Amino acid sequence: MIRVLFAAGAKCWSEYELVLPEALEAKGLTVDLSRDHAPGTVDYIVTAPNGDVQDYRPYRCCKLVQNIWAGVENLTDNPTLTQPLARMVDPGLTRGMVEWVTGHVLRHHLGMDRHILGQDGIWRSEIPPLAADRPVTVLGLGALGSACATTLSDLGFPVRGWARRDKEIPGVEVFSGHDGLDAVLRDAQIVVLLVPLTALTRHLLNAERLALLKRNTIILNPGRGPLIDDGALIAALDSHLGHATLDVFETEPLPADHPFWAHPKVTVTPHIASATRPATAATVIAENIRRGEAGQPFQHLVDRERGY
Amino acid sequence: MIRVLFAAGAKCWSEYELVLPEALEAKGLTVDLSRDHAPGTVDYIVTAPNGDVQDYRPYRCCKLVQNIWAGVENLTDNPTLTQPLARMVDPGLTRGMVEWVTGHVLRHHLGMDRHILGQDGIWRSEIPPLAADRPVTVLGLGALGSACATTLSDLGFPVRGWARRDKEIPGVEVFSGHDGLDAVLRDAQIVVLLVPLTALTRHLLNAERLALLKRNTIILNPGRGPLIDDGALIAALDSHLGHATLDVFETEPLPADHPFWAHPKVTVTPHIASATRPATAATVIAENIRRGEAGQPFQHLVDRERGY
Repeated sequence: MIRVLFAAGAKCWSEYELVLPEALEAKGLTVDLSRDHAPGTVDYIVTAPNGDVQDYRPYRCCKLVQNIWAGVENLTDNPTLTQPLARMVDPGLTRGMVEWVTGHVLRHHLGMDRHILGQDGIWRSEIPPLAADRPVTVLGLGALGSACATTLSDLGFPVRGWARRDKEIPGVEVFSGHDGLDAVLRDAQIVVLLVPLTALTRHLLNAERLALLKRNTIILNPGRGPLIDDGALIAALDSHLGHATLDVFETEPLPADHPFWAHPKVTVTPHIASATRPATAATVIAENIRRGEAGQPFQHLVDRERGY
Repeated sequence: MIRVLFAAGAKCWSEYELVLPEALEAKGLTVDLSRDHAPGTVDYIVTAPNGDVQDYRPYRCCKLVQNIWAGVENLTDNPTLTQPLARMVDPGLTRGMVEWVTGHVLRHHLGMDRHILGQDGIWRSEIPPLAADRPVTVLGLGALGSACATTLSDLGFPVRGWARRDKEIPGVEVFSGHDGLDAVLRDAQIVVLLVPLTALTRHLLNAERLALLKRNTIILNPGRGPLIDDGALIAALDSHLGHATLDVFETEPLPADHPFWAHPKVTVTPHIASATRPATAATVIAENIRRGEAGQPFQHLVDRERGY
């Protein structure tokens, strides 16, 4: 009998208690899935950064800690978590991210806010340019960034991507390194942030890099709040940037008195871009448990040194 | 020497006077292009419904009247226009339409207006469904409708299309006829209007058909204003529809006192979805003139009986 501890919290349990047993059964696994197992008996932990387990040391036989979210920065800095750790790469989460990013890129590209906010009876017939004349930069080309870059390229946008290492993505011009970052920032009209949060990427968009962006550049951040220096962003919006649409923040929920809420060039969305979808995520969890039982390598293991 | 009369008006001339000669030369044609030719000497007319020629009878030798817009309803009802008449099928116009339709479908799908209009400091973490759970109906499957339907299907939306005649479009479930229209209206959450305006499609969305739509259905009309009965639409918005985003109107510019401007469930955009782009349209015009000179059939000829 395989013992799986579901430690991602009560709210998540209500979303997974039906779909996860189904997914496990579909893989031919007989599992004792519970929110309450004796630590020494647990084979796998399904977890979340704000979940039920903060001290992982008693789980001595645990073969894998599987996160149910894409971001792992609040697990990698837990010194008690020495077991293998897997990120969630959920096709449902990826689709949601592609929809949010594509929708907000098109919103800014088409200048929709002028119409949504300005129904004043005045007919202003200004035709927007075509996507082919709107360069978009995607920072981060993991599962999420590359899916977004490909979809935007398919829609006709010239897409540049930036990643830690060079890679090949059809239709996307890929840059890497510090010089590459400066180059993709200088030429963009819309910048999408989808790099993982690590010690190296904290405040990736600081005052110096924000100063490289052209007048009226749009920033979309569905990645992680601390990728941007909030104070520097507000100063850059006040000086030369066009708009920032932000889905993630240093502190969530974003406090009601944070200046982002009231800034005329900021749209806050409440961390809705990157939700794990239980139906598809359950299959990913079950597949990793199947692999563990079959002695095959786990998928989406976190490299503890690079931090994701 | 081929004589081409540019009769689409002074404003259009300023957009075409450079790109059209280039496109004609690229096809190897030697053309006398002017806004002023003796009518009896003209071989081709480039026109627009509100253009310089209203009486086409003196143009006795004219082989083709080429419209620079996609819609021809204000030319087909001109009894003096008996020459062959071609619609504009401009790849630039098609791309612009795909971008407008995809952008506004995603805007409504993601519930963006709540965030754009409601930055009130309250964190409402409501995750939108995935596109796979948002059925979209496209009425009209010509060059524009089929391009939009295909792009929406590629993004994951279940897409149903309705056309006068059955046709095959990968990823799109196609319906036709009156029963088909009722079926695709009943099941949609978002309806896009891209049928041509003819005697048969005027007020296609009347009170009776609007009553078939489910509560909170969204209507996008980038096609033609008279496809919808304005009064019936306002009544349906007040009773059960979710929103209407309208780019085209019976009278354009939409008068400042029209109730659409002030209605909380209507977004007016000023006929920006479907602009012909001179750079690509010039090539389409030049190709039709080349065909005429080579004795080959013209592209995109209007069937005068069906009206498009």
